[in-house]
Amino acid sequence: MQLGVVGLGRMGRIVAGRALDGGHDVVAFDMDEQAVAAAAEVGAEPADSVPELAETLGDEKRIWLMVPAGDAIDAVLADLESHLDGDDVVIDGGNSHFEASVRRAESTPAAYLDCGTSGGPAGAEVGFSLMIGGPEWAYEELSPVFDAVATGPAGHDRMGPAGSGHYVKMIHNGVEYALMEAYGEGFELLHDGRYDLDLESVARTWNNGSVIRSWLLELCEEAFAEEGTDLDTVADHVAGGSTGTWTVQEALAQEIPVPLIYTALAERFGSRSDGRFARQLANRLRYGFGRHEVARCE
Amino acid sequence: MQLGVVGLGRMGRIVAGRALDGGHDVVAFDMDEQAVAAAAEVGAEPADSVPELAETLGDEKRIWLMVPAGDAIDAVLADLESHLDGDDVVIDGGNSHFEASVRRAESTPAAYLDCGTSGGPAGAEVGFSLMIGGPEWAYEELSPVFDAVATGPAGHDRMGPAGSGHYVKMIHNGVEYALMEAYGEGFELLHDGRYDLDLESVARTWNNGSVIRSWLLELCEEAFAEEGTDLDTVADHVAGGSTGTWTVQEALAQEIPVPLIYTALAERFGSRSDGRFARQLANRLRYGFGRHEVARCE
Amino acid sequence: MQLGVVGLGRMGRIVAGRALDGGHDVVAFDMDEQAVAAAAEVGAEPADSVPELAETLGDEKRIWLMVPAGDAIDAVLADLESHLDGDDVVIDGGNSHFEASVRRAESTPAAYLDCGTSGGPAGAEVGFSLMIGGPEWAYEELSPVFDAVATGPAGHDRMGPAGSGHYVKMIHNGVEYALMEAYGEGFELLHDGRYDLDLESVARTWNNGSVIRSWLLELCEEAFAEEGTDLDTVADHVAGGSTGTWTVQEALAQEIPVPLIYTALAERFGSRSDGRFARQLANRLRYGFGRHEVARCE
Amino acid sequence: MQLGVVGLGRMGRIVAGRALDGGHDVVAFDMDEQAVAAAAEVGAEPADSVPELAETLGDEKRIWLMVPAGDAIDAVLADLESHLDGDDVVIDGGNSHFEASVRRAESTPAAYLDCGTSGGPAGAEVGFSLMIGGPEWAYEELSPVFDAVATGPAGHDRMGPAGSGHYVKMIHNGVEYALMEAYGEGFELLHDGRYDLDLESVARTWNNGSVIRSWLLELCEEAFAEEGTDLDTVADHVAGGSTGTWTVQEALAQEIPVPLIYTALAERFGSRSDGRFARQLANRLRYGFGRHEVARCE
Repeated sequence: MQLGVVGLGRMGRIVAGRALDGGHDVVAFDMDEQAVAAAAEVGAEPADSVPELAETLGDEKRIWLMVPAGDAIDAVLADLESHLDGDDVVIDGGNSHFEASVRRAESTPAAYLDCGTSGGPAGAEVGFSLMIGGPEWAYEELSPVFDAVATGPAGHDRMGPAGSGHYVKMIHNGVEYALMEAYGEGFELLHDGRYDLDLESVARTWNNGSVIRSWLLELCEEAFAEEGTDLDTVADHVAGGSTGTWTVQEALAQEIPVPLIYTALAERFGSRSDGRFARQLANRLRYGFGRHEVARCE
Repeated sequence: MQLGVVGLGRMGRIVAGRALDGGHDVVAFDMDEQAVAAAAEVGAEPADSVPELAETLGDEKRIWLMVPAGDAIDAVLADLESHLDGDDVVIDGGNSHFEASVRRAESTPAAYLDCGTSGGPAGAEVGFSLMIGGPEWAYEELSPVFDAVATGPAGHDRMGPAGSGHYVKMIHNGVEYALMEAYGEGFELLHDGRYDLDLESVARTWNNGSVIRSWLLELCEEAFAEEGTDLDTVADHVAGGSTGTWTVQEALAQEIPVPLIYTALAERFGSRSDGRFARQLANRLRYGFGRHEVARCE
Repeated sequence: MQLGVVGLGRMGRIVAGRALDGGHDVVAFDMDEQAVAAAAEVGAEPADSVPELAETLGDEKRIWLMVPAGDAIDAVLADLESHLDGDDVVIDGGNSHFEASVRRAESTPAAYLDCGTSGGPAGAEVGFSLMIGGPEWAYEELSPVFDAVATGPAGHDRMGPAGSGHYVKMIHNGVEYALMEAYGEGFELLHDGRYDLDLESVARTWNNGSVIRSWLLELCEEAFAEEGTDLDTVADHVAGGSTGTWTVQEALAQEIPVPLIYTALAERFGSRSDGRFARQLANRLRYGFGRHEVARCE
Repeated sequence: MQLGVVGLGRMGRIVAGRALDGGHDVVAFDMDEQAVAAAAEVGAEPADSVPELAETLGDEKRIWLMVPAGDAIDAVLADLESHLDGDDVVIDGGNSHFEASVRRAESTPAAYLDCGTSGGPAGAEVGFSLMIGGPEWAYEELSPVFDAVATGPAGHDRMGPAGSGHYVKMIHNGVEYALMEAYGEGFELLHDGRYDLDLESVARTWNNGSVIRSWLLELCEEAFAEEGTDLDTVADHVAGGSTGTWTVQEALAQEIPVPLIYTALAERFGSRSDGRFARQLANRLRYGFGRHEVARCE
């Protein structure tokens, strides 16, 4: 199959490469000419612009967008609009909000697949997990490409109608935040607790046969191997949070409790704050009712 | 009534003073001679030691202990033991663990009242709230003293048998932690949020007629009045935690969820930690699966 | 001052009544004719429609809206629009979202005050707490009416520009959820824990001098007095949640952790769910890894 | 190596079997004669009692205890005591509290290894993860047996001195609770949320390449495959909780926040309660301040 790939960053490069490895033809475009050149070197046909990419693809275009969520997607779709019709298929493989994907599915002339993509750069070797929403025929049509980009047939599926792919990916990320924090709590207790432990050994032992073995735990093991058991130089500051925020917002809208996901998200917020006002007030209130001495800032 | 008071610190001094004001005779002892002299100045009879205090009181001794929870209580009880019999009443007005109070009630020759005392130094004017456990006759016998030390008859009651006074006080403190943190979250959101607000004005407006008016909120108002709306010099470090820990331990034993009380307690622990290992690990894991840059310590 | 009051439900009736008691003239309208008649009986001038009410008020109209948040407010404002100019003042005393109030302040020809109102029906006697946003001149102009409707001058204040009144009220309600849940955890532990306690006595003792005394705790005391210490016939189902949801949404937008407010809100959601899927899955997973027997639904 | 195995239940049977498969000689005892006979059938030498098992082993006894934590362990150790000396090694492979293991290590005449064992019955095929505390020589000595019982050399390690094995296993279980609840929140939101989804498909897609792939997620996939996407007949009641409780108790003692582990544990408690008193009180309080109707029990 001939596949257009727009966006050749960390993730788009892998999509193009795995599609090529799977025997598909790839036409590739990125704002960054060097990224296009790099894709060409591994076998992709380079395009100079989105319209040129569309023209190259001919009828029954299949175009995979791997650009940052938000305005970038809408800009590419605007460039594509006059080139698309109902026989074409556009795939948004980024982290778009599911409601934006529903809106784009309605306004795009082509069939539109929202494709939640998990696995990160590691997916270059093992393949991604692809959660896909949109018309069934378009999903079936693209299955050979999904087989190549994912871990294989088991690594992708159609979740449901428009938006459902990004919906499932959003919640995947909410769960991811909570899993990271759950392991974090455990290792913090091991690190600051009663015994002097080698956390790489703990993680390795757990990864071989325990109930809590997982890929994230393998990444913990790798982190302790590379950084040392104390993570000495690693700051206690956690960036990110948009998909987790979306998950909590959706849970509020659905009136479904997600206390672990919320707490993991709030922990990130807390990690980025210089001083916590609530703590200052609690400190002062203890003086108010109990005349406990107020700790002061230097 | 003649009342012995052992322990003339911040709280014991108030017990002695309010008993005197209520027309009772007070025999007072403290390790600190100056504290004894100060009590004598306002009308108490000074004692040089615990045994001397016991001797002075004669038969049907009524002795209020206001000493730090733990070994100090046991030391005073050891000094008293040979002077006590079943007609005497000992009151532990401190923050003892309820199980320690049950044990002491069994081993002390006198009737033993465990008396949870809330209100802090402010109780000097308005009186304390007294939650009392132990034999009914002893509670009834001491009621005139409790009337004087509490806010009046409505400010004290017998909760139940031995230990129940300190049990109710323990849970009171657990609730207190959660209330402080609840106000703290609200004021943090007001302070760091969308508008530039005068938090003293907010607290005053709330204290006059709102659903969430309370004494703690009056203390917030006072804090903003005295420290400024930014609590500039107040550190974000919250000390204390023993009674909150006991509350959570008891809730674990009873298998009853107390997530707000737990979270308020954990927030104190978090405020006292230099770096949170769980955060360091989450920071590093985001590199592991997504190649997000790792923020480093300087 | 002459004050128009639109909406004579539980809260509007109190606003009209307290304004009348404070010596102001009131012109009153409600969709329900009986409510208007009742207001007329206590001294208000009745109006048959919103436009008639506006006409009656003449120049420099001061109109207090006490109608349900949402479309009802916009409907009244649409009826008023042609009658208003920049010398007039409209007050929204309901639970509107602060962003809706900012929008209405911009589109309404009159000065617009968003007024968060706390205290509930109990405010009939003690007066309300009023948190007010909008132009300073309008707030000053209406102060005599606010003095009458609130607990007095200390019970109302201008928080800041448009929307700030409802912003502060929104957060007030978030704190309210957390306070209720904090007391709830304490009383649940007292009720289901180690001693057989009289919760009315506990609440009364706490309300007289303890650190956690508050109006909500007085309402707990009243609840135990009226319902019995077991709250036998009271369902474990908590309605409501919109202002708490808004508070959490705003905290997400501001990236400020509010774990107690979130947990109290989630607890309401959980109380309204027949079966919790997460629990079903955990039950089944324990079989998956440990062959623990799966409890089944009958 | 010759290995005694005491306790041939679900887990002990696997230990004996894997040791035999690894080429070791096994002497086996259990209170249940049928369990002993079954072990004999697969090649173990049967013993009629703990003392007989000890006698059979001769000098340099290596004895693996796989009996329920608590009194059962102490009973076996009492039976063994006169047969042991410092050249012998006893392994406790159960879920003992780490402090009990420290105590037993001190009072047992043999070298004592506390061995946290994870993997459950599934370990019959893949092997267990073994976290081991105690003297280094004893751990080295037993390594061939650990190689056979674990997934291999990577599946076991010495964590540190006495108690550290069970300490790490305790925290492993705390993390396990939080992971289960994290997946549960995600699947609950998927199940009760906006789309009609096939959760087996979601789990399978995630298990193939996503960041959150894990053994627990494979068990989720299996659960949906076997029970259906609605888990129709599975009760929302989660048993267990002792090791999670220990983890939270240790975190309290160490003053380390573990909000996700705590919340997951509290969720189990909540799942086992008929009516939540805190919810009843909140329901009633909403009437107290707002005259909201009180939902009643039928």
